Amino acid sequence: MRRSAVAVVFKDSYLVGLIGSGIGPSLSPALHEREADRQGLRYLYRLIDIDVLGLGPEAVGDLVRAARDLGFDGLNITHPCKQLVIPHLDALAPQAEALGAVNTVVFEEGRAVGHNTDVTGFAASFARGLPDVPLERVVQLGAGGAGAAVAHATLTLGAGQVTVVDALADRAADLAGSLNRHFGPGRAAAAGPDRLADLLARADGVVHATPTGMAAHPGLPFPAGLLRPDLWVAEVVYRPLETELLRTARAVGCATLDGGGMAVFQAVDAFRLFTGREPDSVGMLADFADMVRGAERSAGHPV
Amino acid sequence: MRRSAVAVVFKDSYLVGLIGSGIGPSLSPALHEREADRQGLRYLYRLIDIDVLGLGPEAVGDLVRAARDLGFDGLNITHPCKQLVIPHLDALAPQAEALGAVNTVVFEEGRAVGHNTDVTGFAASFARGLPDVPLERVVQLGAGGAGAAVAHATLTLGAGQVTVVDALADRAADLAGSLNRHFGPGRAAAAGPDRLADLLARADGVVHATPTGMAAHPGLPFPAGLLRPDLWVAEVVYRPLETELLRTARAVGCATLDGGGMAVFQAVDAFRLFTGREPDSVGMLADFADMVRGAERSAGHPV
Repeated sequence: MRRSAVAVVFKDSYLVGLIGSGIGPSLSPALHEREADRQGLRYLYRLIDIDVLGLGPEAVGDLVRAARDLGFDGLNITHPCKQLVIPHLDALAPQAEALGAVNTVVFEEGRAVGHNTDVTGFAASFARGLPDVPLERVVQLGAGGAGAAVAHATLTLGAGQVTVVDALADRAADLAGSLNRHFGPGRAAAAGPDRLADLLARADGVVHATPTGMAAHPGLPFPAGLLRPDLWVAEVVYRPLETELLRTARAVGCATLDGGGMAVFQAVDAFRLFTGREPDSVGMLADFADMVRGAERSAGHPV
Repeated sequence: MRRSAVAVVFKDSYLVGLIGSGIGPSLSPALHEREADRQGLRYLYRLIDIDVLGLGPEAVGDLVRAARDLGFDGLNITHPCKQLVIPHLDALAPQAEALGAVNTVVFEEGRAVGHNTDVTGFAASFARGLPDVPLERVVQLGAGGAGAAVAHATLTLGAGQVTVVDALADRAADLAGSLNRHFGPGRAAAAGPDRLADLLARADGVVHATPTGMAAHPGLPFPAGLLRPDLWVAEVVYRPLETELLRTARAVGCATLDGGGMAVFQAVDAFRLFTGREPDSVGMLADFADMVRGAERSAGHPV
């Protein structure tokens, strides 16, 4: 192996944070800090909750500038600031630019560069968890922020066509249009929930990107009868880690992917961007599973 | 020992920083972080240099508010912001209020409270290094910011009278007036350098609080002939740790106190305020001596 001609200077400490609304229960601080501990790094991850601070989402620009001035190395950005932060950045990585959403900001010599590790995180989780599944026809439920990120990831992974299903017809159409502009005509389509049975009957797999299955939205996103053993099922919800959709799909015999992988790999990719060091993704997956099960136990959810 | 009725909740991580001008060479990050490592705490100390940021000293208020919002637990404040920060704080500890200068801000439930650990730090260093010296008549050279802090400390320790000598007559008179208002009439006096020989001849000890003896201001602050074995000498300069004044005074046989103790104990007291935990001051003194000698070696100073 040739030694790189570029000297990589590792810093000795890292300060990062998460800006968003209602982020108190976030697992990101523990996920990042435990990985940093494994690597022997001084690393601090702070939650910057605009609700706690009494600030509106438009404050994200001032918060990003202040974080840069006060010595932060980077930030994660979440709802409702992923789009609003963009005008305050100096540059965007390709995924963030294509998606129009940023979940990670890295400060590099005073410049703020926006990335989107929701896209790369879902792609990494999918490639790891469902490595050999067919991708010709993919149905995706949900065209919100998470839906946009995972649709970009699925098409980047080589999906032939993604059909986006959302009860909000305009939202589905907007996302499909944006995906076609970016990935080429015919790669994406929009449909209403009334067409779901027909679409799933002809699909290789389904990506679920709505809140159904979370504690506040229990149940299945579509009738169990639409599942069949040769349909793969990828879930975005990760609280609980085992949603009713995944439980049902496994019982039917489907190959499945839980939402934890995306949650972990977006953190894996952010950690790599913040530090320039390769995270131990297997260790982070194990930490995440511990934390989610611990949270589910203390919340009285089934383990 | 009775257990306290008040439950002390220890946090699991600490984020602090230093706001000031030209603070790049500060030893505070290493001093705090090494002590935190000994205690097994996650602790990050960031330098926030207004020169690097292109900000004026009046920006300190915005920086303090931003640090509070972004999850800092506290700040050290240094030149030129120790006075300017005061209008931006919610409360002042007694030493900071008496001195009119703040070098430490602690965020407590959203409130910013100002402290001055230069005062408590010099007092702690003095009590440790010169525990039994007479304090009836003390001469102090220098009425600047450091001079004001150490004069407060010396009088708090019980000095009978401190005579402040400064080439700037107004500055000496202002400090003496302020000390008399705070500690009672007759506790302080002001004098010009022309009276120094006479004052030292009748003094128990001398506190040196001017820049003389630093690399940029070499030499002695007064003629070596004014030293005598029963005059104690306390130094504020700590770079180098062994100033020409201390070397000369030791040769004469004076009891001496170097400036490192104040530098360390202001950090000891700040660490205690930030964390609520008792620092290992002996360990911090040893760390500090290592760092200063290392810096002197690399700068070509005598070790």
